[in-house]
Amino acid sequence: MAADPHGKAETLARRRRLLSSSCRLFFPEDPIKIVRGQGQYMYDEQGAEYIDCINNVAHVGHCHPLVVQAAHEQNQVLNTNSRYLHDNIMDFAQRLSETLPEKLCVFYFLNSGSEANDLALRLARQYTGHWDVVVLDHAYHGHLSSLIDISPYKFRDLDGQKEWVHVAPLPDTYRGLYREDHPNPAEAYANEVKRVVSSAQEQGRQIAAFFAESLPSVGGQIIPPAGYFPEVAEHIHRAGGVFVADEIQVGFGRVGKHFWAFQLQGEDFVPDIVTMGKSIGNGHPVACVATTQAVARAFEATGVEYFNTVSEGSRAREH
Amino acid sequence: MAADPHGKAETLARRRRLLSSSCRLFFPEDPIKIVRGQGQYMYDEQGAEYIDCINNVAHVGHCHPLVVQAAHEQNQVLNTNSRYLHDNIMDFAQRLSETLPEKLCVFYFLNSGSEANDLALRLARQYTGHWDVVVLDHAYHGHLSSLIDISPYKFRDLDGQKEWVHVAPLPDTYRGLYREDHPNPAEAYANEVKRVVSSAQEQGRQIAAFFAESLPSVGGQIIPPAGYFPEVAEHIHRAGGVFVADEIQVGFGRVGKHFWAFQLQGEDFVPDIVTMGKSIGNGHPVACVATTQAVARAFEATGVEYFNTVSEGSRAREH
Repeated sequence: MAADPHGKAETLARRRRLLSSSCRLFFPEDPIKIVRGQGQYMYDEQGAEYIDCINNVAHVGHCHPLVVQAAHEQNQVLNTNSRYLHDNIMDFAQRLSETLPEKLCVFYFLNSGSEANDLALRLARQYTGHWDVVVLDHAYHGHLSSLIDISPYKFRDLDGQKEWVHVAPLPDTYRGLYREDHPNPAEAYANEVKRVVSSAQEQGRQIAAFFAESLPSVGGQIIPPAGYFPEVAEHIHRAGGVFVADEIQVGFGRVGKHFWAFQLQGEDFVPDIVTMGKSIGNGHPVACVATTQAVARAFEATGVEYFNTVSEGSRAREH
Repeated sequence: MAADPHGKAETLARRRRLLSSSCRLFFPEDPIKIVRGQGQYMYDEQGAEYIDCINNVAHVGHCHPLVVQAAHEQNQVLNTNSRYLHDNIMDFAQRLSETLPEKLCVFYFLNSGSEANDLALRLARQYTGHWDVVVLDHAYHGHLSSLIDISPYKFRDLDGQKEWVHVAPLPDTYRGLYREDHPNPAEAYANEVKRVVSSAQEQGRQIAAFFAESLPSVGGQIIPPAGYFPEVAEHIHRAGGVFVADEIQVGFGRVGKHFWAFQLQGEDFVPDIVTMGKSIGNGHPVACVATTQAVARAFEATGVEYFNTVSEGSRAREH
């Protein structure tokens, strides 16, 4: 059992005093004080053991010795600004590229999934010259201003829906519009996207991106019917937009059968942009955006640098 | 000399292939490959030693043994989601609060300075019920969509100035509008902010915030004349806005005489929101927003949680 100089009640009181209560706790009525983690277990200040079924960062288990060792070795050598040449960042990009379709071959590294989705939005807008975004109902894409705007889960309680945001129904064959008894739910839900796009275009709007978690997680762990994404991508490409697959919570093998959740949609399906976060760093703040040469080149053509002070050392521990 | 399996030319070629060229290098014509850092020195793949005068993260020197050790000890014990109770995050908030005016007593922790400034923008807008922002000319506040909009350094090369952004002259007494020979440059520059605010109000706009680095760094390491911020704050408060001091690059003692650069403006001056980043983590991605009870309460009143998957472990190394 780890030392607990403060005691749980005092920790809670201090948290209420020092941190904003907007920063919510898990189980807010009876929060847990976790002092230690190892493998699949977490331990509270009394030494009680919990099987961790809710963590979205400890991907290879808490305090995996290889990860801890890699971080320590790198921290002893170098942990600095990413604007120097270094091999770790390229080794990591190379390993990621081996898990992705060949077309997704340009990488950007960042600190959080939210930063990744914000960059995806910028890339999509720059590449397409359009502004609007189609999202799925109940989606959550991050805590930044730009992402709250494209997260129905958030904006419904805040500023409401912006005129450049268009919401398509969640492709939920269990509780949704079209269910398992429908002859072709993938096509039916994709047609809903097509309808949303057409209706936006009739109002003179132009679509920059379709933005979706590859397996909507905050929206209810919904598995979209196979073939839905390829059809959606066709409708979106025809409208001049790009397909963004948000893998922040569901990527890195978390769907079980595939390394990326978008691969559940068929071997041939390739998003234009993939965003990664959370489990990528096993607790360390790292995120990534992968995209095509075409999208990256359009962004570079602005001549404006993308600068993010991410540290080299953070890359090492992924190996 | 560290091992260098790839060689500098190959590393550069790999970087060109795998990372977007929007991610610029320092000294792009002849970038440096840095393989090791220690104290004030960095070392390239040939073993050449550089005195590091440009780093904006290695605050207590590269690979400070106490920082490395603290990170390692924490990584071995726990590095997880911040939605559990833990003492480190409160110990750190407590220590930060001891460096700040008493009114700045509510803290939010995040992964990057950009995330901090985006949250500051949300806090300001929620608290004031206004939308517009006054910034200083040449300012840079981050790489996110929302921050490019308030960074003249960026938006002039991209989408241009939004109607809700108002630019005041840089209070530069060396090269600016009012110089050292002016009887009261602080008042003169503050009156320029007042003029910008009035002109915005005449167009029916309402000011949420004045947003400035406490010592404009990207804008040229400009030291604003003492007394400028307090006068600006009066004009901004009268317009119903808040004063945001961006200390991401200049905080934590980097101005020399004071822990925070805004303290150069007088003992009594208190911003409504302070944002921190970069050197806060000595290379580890950490950031913070400190604000008043009043601002935090207004944000909480929306009932919407602010959720950021920052890791507990990241807090430990700051002690």
